[in-house]
Amino acid sequence: MEKPQKIRVVPRGFYSYVTSAGIKDTSLDLGVIYSEVEAQAAAVFTQNKVCGNPVKVAQRHIRQGKIQALIVNSKNSNVATGREGYEAALQLCQKVGEELSINPQRVFPASTGVIGRRFPIEKIVTAISGLKEKLVTPPDFVSFAKAIMTTDTYPKFGERSLGKAHLVGVAKGSGMIAPNMATMLAFFFTDAQLSSNQLRKILKETVKKTFNCLSIDSDTSTSDTVLVLANGLGGPVSEDEFRKNFLSLAEELTMHLARDGEGATKLFLVDVLEAKNDQEAHKIGLSIINSPLVKTAIYKGDPNWGRIFMAIGKTPGVRVVEEKIQLFWGPEKIASENLTALHKYLVENEVVHLEVRLGLGQGKARVYGCDLTEEYVRINAYYTT
Amino acid sequence: MEKPQKIRVVPRGFYSYVTSAGIKDTSLDLGVIYSEVEAQAAAVFTQNKVCGNPVKVAQRHIRQGKIQALIVNSKNSNVATGREGYEAALQLCQKVGEELSINPQRVFPASTGVIGRRFPIEKIVTAISGLKEKLVTPPDFVSFAKAIMTTDTYPKFGERSLGKAHLVGVAKGSGMIAPNMATMLAFFFTDAQLSSNQLRKILKETVKKTFNCLSIDSDTSTSDTVLVLANGLGGPVSEDEFRKNFLSLAEELTMHLARDGEGATKLFLVDVLEAKNDQEAHKIGLSIINSPLVKTAIYKGDPNWGRIFMAIGKTPGVRVVEEKIQLFWGPEKIASENLTALHKYLVENEVVHLEVRLGLGQGKARVYGCDLTEEYVRINAYYTT
Repeated sequence: MEKPQKIRVVPRGFYSYVTSAGIKDTSLDLGVIYSEVEAQAAAVFTQNKVCGNPVKVAQRHIRQGKIQALIVNSKNSNVATGREGYEAALQLCQKVGEELSINPQRVFPASTGVIGRRFPIEKIVTAISGLKEKLVTPPDFVSFAKAIMTTDTYPKFGERSLGKAHLVGVAKGSGMIAPNMATMLAFFFTDAQLSSNQLRKILKETVKKTFNCLSIDSDTSTSDTVLVLANGLGGPVSEDEFRKNFLSLAEELTMHLARDGEGATKLFLVDVLEAKNDQEAHKIGLSIINSPLVKTAIYKGDPNWGRIFMAIGKTPGVRVVEEKIQLFWGPEKIASENLTALHKYLVENEVVHLEVRLGLGQGKARVYGCDLTEEYVRINAYYTT
Repeated sequence: MEKPQKIRVVPRGFYSYVTSAGIKDTSLDLGVIYSEVEAQAAAVFTQNKVCGNPVKVAQRHIRQGKIQALIVNSKNSNVATGREGYEAALQLCQKVGEELSINPQRVFPASTGVIGRRFPIEKIVTAISGLKEKLVTPPDFVSFAKAIMTTDTYPKFGERSLGKAHLVGVAKGSGMIAPNMATMLAFFFTDAQLSSNQLRKILKETVKKTFNCLSIDSDTSTSDTVLVLANGLGGPVSEDEFRKNFLSLAEELTMHLARDGEGATKLFLVDVLEAKNDQEAHKIGLSIINSPLVKTAIYKGDPNWGRIFMAIGKTPGVRVVEEKIQLFWGPEKIASENLTALHKYLVENEVVHLEVRLGLGQGKARVYGCDLTEEYVRINAYYTT
């Protein structure tokens, strides 16, 4: 997979500011995106019952469907920090609002990093002092993508053109969570003219097919957030065309997140076909890509397809018929029994594709995962907080 | 944790035969336990919908509550081997029945090893030719425990005395499954006089509190089996006394299985207290011990308790109140916030104990896990089938 290099055309009316607030060291750890007019907005959040204070505040602020500024920091997630952490998240929005002379409720906060450490609000407040003068346009989405990275090995972004309007997406995440230093965040910015209701519908559909089909390690972040802002300055677009482009960009970012999973060496794409229904296909797919034994087999190309059967069979609440299950690998649809060809395919390809046919119905789902390596253990065991 | 060394007293009327059938190499890979009279029997099996042929046959044979011989092999699980594999499992019981002049339906088969490879029935049939002459008593349970090992690093067994009767337990398993070379098996042999109904009840209760609270890697074997045989030759015992001893022996074996998890360096014991009910406590406990991020933190003693919060919060279908959650570590009940003491405790102890208090009710559960290490990845990635 090729890493994204640059963004050619950006949506109108957006500004950025990216800096190091010195939360942990001098690397980039803070990014702001500002729209010169209020943008229509929609967002989805983590399902974890323990969720971050920025998530709680963002959930309140998104209710009216309008956002004008986004502020994101890495290195501290402001999770499990109690009342003080909640107040800090509010204070942050207040400060951004003052600096930009906008309603603080139009500010959307997101944080990622270690859980349970006091949020360094003073450092961030200092860093955004005089924010209005510091904003640049066209916005530097690439630096913004870098500032929100944690254990990511490369910044993740992409773009689409929709006639006169443009769409840019930025994402980060390396474990679905690594509470030290990860979480999945994705932000989309467009100057297309769409209502928050349209955005909400499209976002929900898209997330279901993309980010919710991604699992690095089966853990669920306390801070996962996906946001889309549409400021309308590029004029109206066909909803259908926007939906298609939005989905394809979200798929692209999902593939980058999976490929860059902590310690991963391979992207593992699984299509589950002929399931009883889409929901069961999705559950079986997740069971496969979350299985440590499948993930380790993918890592070193062990053609041990019995592990796939095991993972299918253990899926809670789903009936399968063992004799009907068929596995095909790669574009040449290698059958599992062909151990030599399968081993060769697994070893030689950075993107591994598995097609599972269950022979039960029309249900299907695609899921995105990665391999499990010693490096994953190293990243997560040796980090000292 | 001390490894088991030897068995001092064995239950009456049992015989053993342990050998290498040469399934893969010349190491011990086959064990038979025979009771000179039919034993009352009860068993529980894997919940995986893809289950092994020996499991299918054993499920049929256990129905009448009577078993006289057990035959177990390692190195090939006879899973996903189709009709031929099923016939092979039946043929195996037939052969044992002929050799021992007993009803083949009184033979209980169990296999563990690689999935999806033809079962080498001929090798095993050859190995048990003349079985009756080869049996020895008192039975050699220690060698039997060795013969059923796969990636286990030591044989697991234990014993209890109940007045005149005795109880011996043997277990194996290193991943909950590693389809190459693992599965959880546990066999209990007693000369206590108990009916199969009594055994079934006691076994069900016990498994719920012990083996079902154990997870090495969240994967579910296609071959997991727990069997108890009571031949009555030691005379009647108090059911209550038997229940207590059976539970404590099962706990002991569960701890050995967790401690000897693939690549593990630590046993991770979690007590979840003050949950809404026992079931929710159990679910939360499993979410904690299955989280790769918690497991890696335990490995190198990262006092990153935010990961525990994350794992509690992501438990499906369970509500928690973040502010009420309290974590205490070790016998001295170190609070999570005490990072230095917690790090020291984690690094210095091979058995790590965590007490989670949820502040919601009276529900509780104990679960058994282990850390996640580079060695787990190595064991499961580099094995070439």
